[in-house]
Amino acid sequence: MAKLVLIRHGQSQWNLSNQFTGWVDVDLSDEGVKQAQNAGKLIKDAGLEFDYAYTSVLTRAIKTLHYALEGSDQLWIPETKTWRLNERHYGALQGQNKAEAAKKWGDDQVHIWRRSYDVLPPLLDASDEGSAANDRRYANLDPRIIPGGENLKVTLERVIPFWEDEIAPKLLDGKNVIIAAHGNSLRALSKYIENISDEDIINLEMATGEPVVYDFNDKLEVQNKTKLN
Amino acid sequence: MAKLVLIRHGQSQWNLSNQFTGWVDVDLSDEGVKQAQNAGKLIKDAGLEFDYAYTSVLTRAIKTLHYALEGSDQLWIPETKTWRLNERHYGALQGQNKAEAAKKWGDDQVHIWRRSYDVLPPLLDASDEGSAANDRRYANLDPRIIPGGENLKVTLERVIPFWEDEIAPKLLDGKNVIIAAHGNSLRALSKYIENISDEDIINLEMATGEPVVYDFNDKLEVQNKTKLN
Repeated sequence: MAKLVLIRHGQSQWNLSNQFTGWVDVDLSDEGVKQAQNAGKLIKDAGLEFDYAYTSVLTRAIKTLHYALEGSDQLWIPETKTWRLNERHYGALQGQNKAEAAKKWGDDQVHIWRRSYDVLPPLLDASDEGSAANDRRYANLDPRIIPGGENLKVTLERVIPFWEDEIAPKLLDGKNVIIAAHGNSLRALSKYIENISDEDIINLEMATGEPVVYDFNDKLEVQNKTKLN
Repeated sequence: MAKLVLIRHGQSQWNLSNQFTGWVDVDLSDEGVKQAQNAGKLIKDAGLEFDYAYTSVLTRAIKTLHYALEGSDQLWIPETKTWRLNERHYGALQGQNKAEAAKKWGDDQVHIWRRSYDVLPPLLDASDEGSAANDRRYANLDPRIIPGGENLKVTLERVIPFWEDEIAPKLLDGKNVIIAAHGNSLRALSKYIENISDEDIINLEMATGEPVVYDFNDKLEVQNKTKLN
């Protein structure tokens, strides 16, 4: 019976300033650091021991993982970072204030960009200054897979290959896994793990810094889901 | 021309209390955190960009690496932790105060244990409470390679296979590498890299938190060695 813990990064500086973040590498806020440290305490109190850790290539998720592992005395476990666990890429909305975007494009349009399963945001071009194509951390990726913007559907389609190739085999081998990532990459993963419909996934929210624990049977069916808080 | 940066972890709580540490998983002191953060700043100011990071499975080295990478905006690079970069195992001396040990066994004997190249300290048995054999992080190691105590020679002999298999190939491929580790695992590595004799290695000291930069040619010969401070 393997366990999987998902943890959304603690509050970031742009959560605080209400800006679309996506792949922009924004740091944790002071409150976010506290949330991540508290997650470590909750994991320790629950007696959870991990064999493998995974996170994105974005600082706020990496630091959340490190605080969670340090707080539970297991900073030494193997850690793998992948762009596939990155936050949903928010395209040309990245950096914009959410309230100002609502004024500019209307509440309904912004709500659709934020909550629809398969509508893309306005896209960034690879030549745009903020494009991931100009970031050294993506230099080893086939340029065709660097997104200009993603919806939840596209996010899921790039998260799941990593689940299939790296995470599922570990769980099937009885290993316990922790993943520290982002609101939408974790919603995508939860959708797949729990077989949630395209309609119902809209209602799933992940709280920042709150570890979610799944217990699986040997067919990777969820036997139990618990939130630590 | 690949670059390699070696960094000894910042001051630990037992550096401060003058205790033999070895494989005991002691945290950084507040001063050690500052040293590690300063190392990040020095690396950033020097414009050093890494492709791969390596560290031990001991918290003080892992945290030093994380501070150094975060401070130079590259916490996202791939990181590998290995027991082969651990501090020299200090056997039954681990946990003892160095001054008290000198009173108990005499200055000369303790000096020999600390500074000789090939004299072993008093050994820990696998059944002793403090043995690494009882630590989950070494559960996947062949029990025969878990040491009861090491000298610098034995430390070198378990560090170098990791150099040969993991680090040297990256440098030969033109990749820049950072290693955050410990006084003696880094002295062992430096001895090998610089071809220092068994006698002369006694005089090589690594300062805590001070990055040492090597430039190599395509035969892995040292072209330049610089300390950042």
